[in-house]
Amino acid sequence: MTEKYCIAVDMGGTNTRAALINSYGEVLTKIKEHTGTDPLATLNKLIGNLYSDNAAKVYGIGLAVAGIIDSDNGIVLWSPHIQKLKDVNLKTEIEKSFKTSVVIENDANAAAYGEKWAGTGKDYKNFVVLTLGTGIGGGIIIDNKLLPVAAEVGHMSINSGGAQCACGNIGCLELYASARAIIGNAVSALEKGDNSILKDFYNGNFYKITAEDIYKTALDGDMLARAVLREAGKNLGIGIANIINILSPDAVILTGGLVGAWNIYVEPAIQEASKRAFNELYARVKIIPSSLGDDAGVIGAAALIFKTPKTVK
Amino acid sequence: MTEKYCIAVDMGGTNTRAALINSYGEVLTKIKEHTGTDPLATLNKLIGNLYSDNAAKVYGIGLAVAGIIDSDNGIVLWSPHIQKLKDVNLKTEIEKSFKTSVVIENDANAAAYGEKWAGTGKDYKNFVVLTLGTGIGGGIIIDNKLLPVAAEVGHMSINSGGAQCACGNIGCLELYASARAIIGNAVSALEKGDNSILKDFYNGNFYKITAEDIYKTALDGDMLARAVLREAGKNLGIGIANIINILSPDAVILTGGLVGAWNIYVEPAIQEASKRAFNELYARVKIIPSSLGDDAGVIGAAALIFKTPKTVK
Repeated sequence: MTEKYCIAVDMGGTNTRAALINSYGEVLTKIKEHTGTDPLATLNKLIGNLYSDNAAKVYGIGLAVAGIIDSDNGIVLWSPHIQKLKDVNLKTEIEKSFKTSVVIENDANAAAYGEKWAGTGKDYKNFVVLTLGTGIGGGIIIDNKLLPVAAEVGHMSINSGGAQCACGNIGCLELYASARAIIGNAVSALEKGDNSILKDFYNGNFYKITAEDIYKTALDGDMLARAVLREAGKNLGIGIANIINILSPDAVILTGGLVGAWNIYVEPAIQEASKRAFNELYARVKIIPSSLGDDAGVIGAAALIFKTPKTVK
Repeated sequence: MTEKYCIAVDMGGTNTRAALINSYGEVLTKIKEHTGTDPLATLNKLIGNLYSDNAAKVYGIGLAVAGIIDSDNGIVLWSPHIQKLKDVNLKTEIEKSFKTSVVIENDANAAAYGEKWAGTGKDYKNFVVLTLGTGIGGGIIIDNKLLPVAAEVGHMSINSGGAQCACGNIGCLELYASARAIIGNAVSALEKGDNSILKDFYNGNFYKITAEDIYKTALDGDMLARAVLREAGKNLGIGIANIINILSPDAVILTGGLVGAWNIYVEPAIQEASKRAFNELYARVKIIPSSLGDDAGVIGAAALIFKTPKTVK
């Protein structure tokens, strides 16, 4: 029997990752590129690279894209970081170029599906995946199935009189707990003249500071970096408490770059959630990292192909 | 064929309602009593009244109870207004007294199930029911099935630095948008000496003022009453926007006493939700009243009996 492959693409924002993945969830090849100003061209190029040598074995293409996705029809209704894709029927576009079926889903929903298929979620019947990166996304599994809902938990207001979000809402969780929030708060503090080792990074060009820089500096004991991460973590915990009170999951599975900062960012989140969520519900939930690491996104996109029908619909 | 009946009980807080309902969702008899200091005795009395004359036809007893309910095992884990029921196995207790099967569920979850069975929800595949009364509850239907989750949307923080809620969380939606919030804000304003016709109600005993008094006064043009209702409605809209962004429902169905104040309370909620939710999701949702009126609670409890299996489990 010929082994079956799929091409799995994770288009979160700045970077687009693509991988050749087999039906056991093993990543065989992976490539990455800046999404750039022509996201469709980037997609075609990355998929083309993987497709050319493996066309006969490719069973389908799974696309995980940040934003509001009409997965039934394959259309990107809105994407926060890839605005050029608005109203594009990616399914049709990619099926035009490659002779195989294409499935498209919101990236965090795909991540939840990937967790269920090949990650930490295998052990849980009801869980929520949070993707913690530039923004914050969510995917919900109930009774082992992906809920066919937007799950835009990063755009839940936790501070109704707070700051304006680009999405139109006010006080979104993402504004207080994402990598972008962490960087923004660190840069603001540096601009005000607060003391920190970060001042000397990139010859004082604060705008080049990354979330990873902040985390590493925090590990070295930098007070500003620690405070900024802790505050963001605490806000994440407020969001997690809301999720627990609404969805009473068995687990909240965390993925994305910020999970690396577990002890300074996630631990305060867990502490805050424990104080805020209903005791009866908090007692039953585990807040844990994904086992899939950097591959969570592409594994999720692959799950769209190998685990259809993918929703309770 | 003998007609099948069930006894349906809605135990929300202050009052407990019980009804004899047939398998078409028709309410044949209904009775109501103060829940009082011995809720179990009240339950047994109300059920006993309906059971005695109809024992042969009673197919089951459905209990809709406010709080965190372990419906698999029939246990009340926590109830905000009926603390005596904490950790009581109501299923066992009631089955002991009456020779028929008992199903217990959170009251707002039951309401959602009732909407699907016999109310406005019949026309929608994915919807959220909000019960707007002393507190705010929620029930979620996805793919025509009740999600087996807590759905405690009233205890979603929308103001993370706000007031302490009895549930342990801070800034819960319920603190800003429920009947209790409306009354509390009106009384505070009256105590500060703000002008309003409400001052003269109950010989100036502000603590007797009800949400209905406030609504009627608002209809008469009272500025304080109007302002209090509008502010609560706006806050409800913030909660509804969060629900839309997370659950992307086809409909949000509103039930409970406050729905009567549609034009002054719900309309501002709809306006706020329209500004805050993702446009793409808001465009697809209808925010509408339940068609079941005061019977929504008992119809929901009856649905637990006549429409099992009741969840996606």
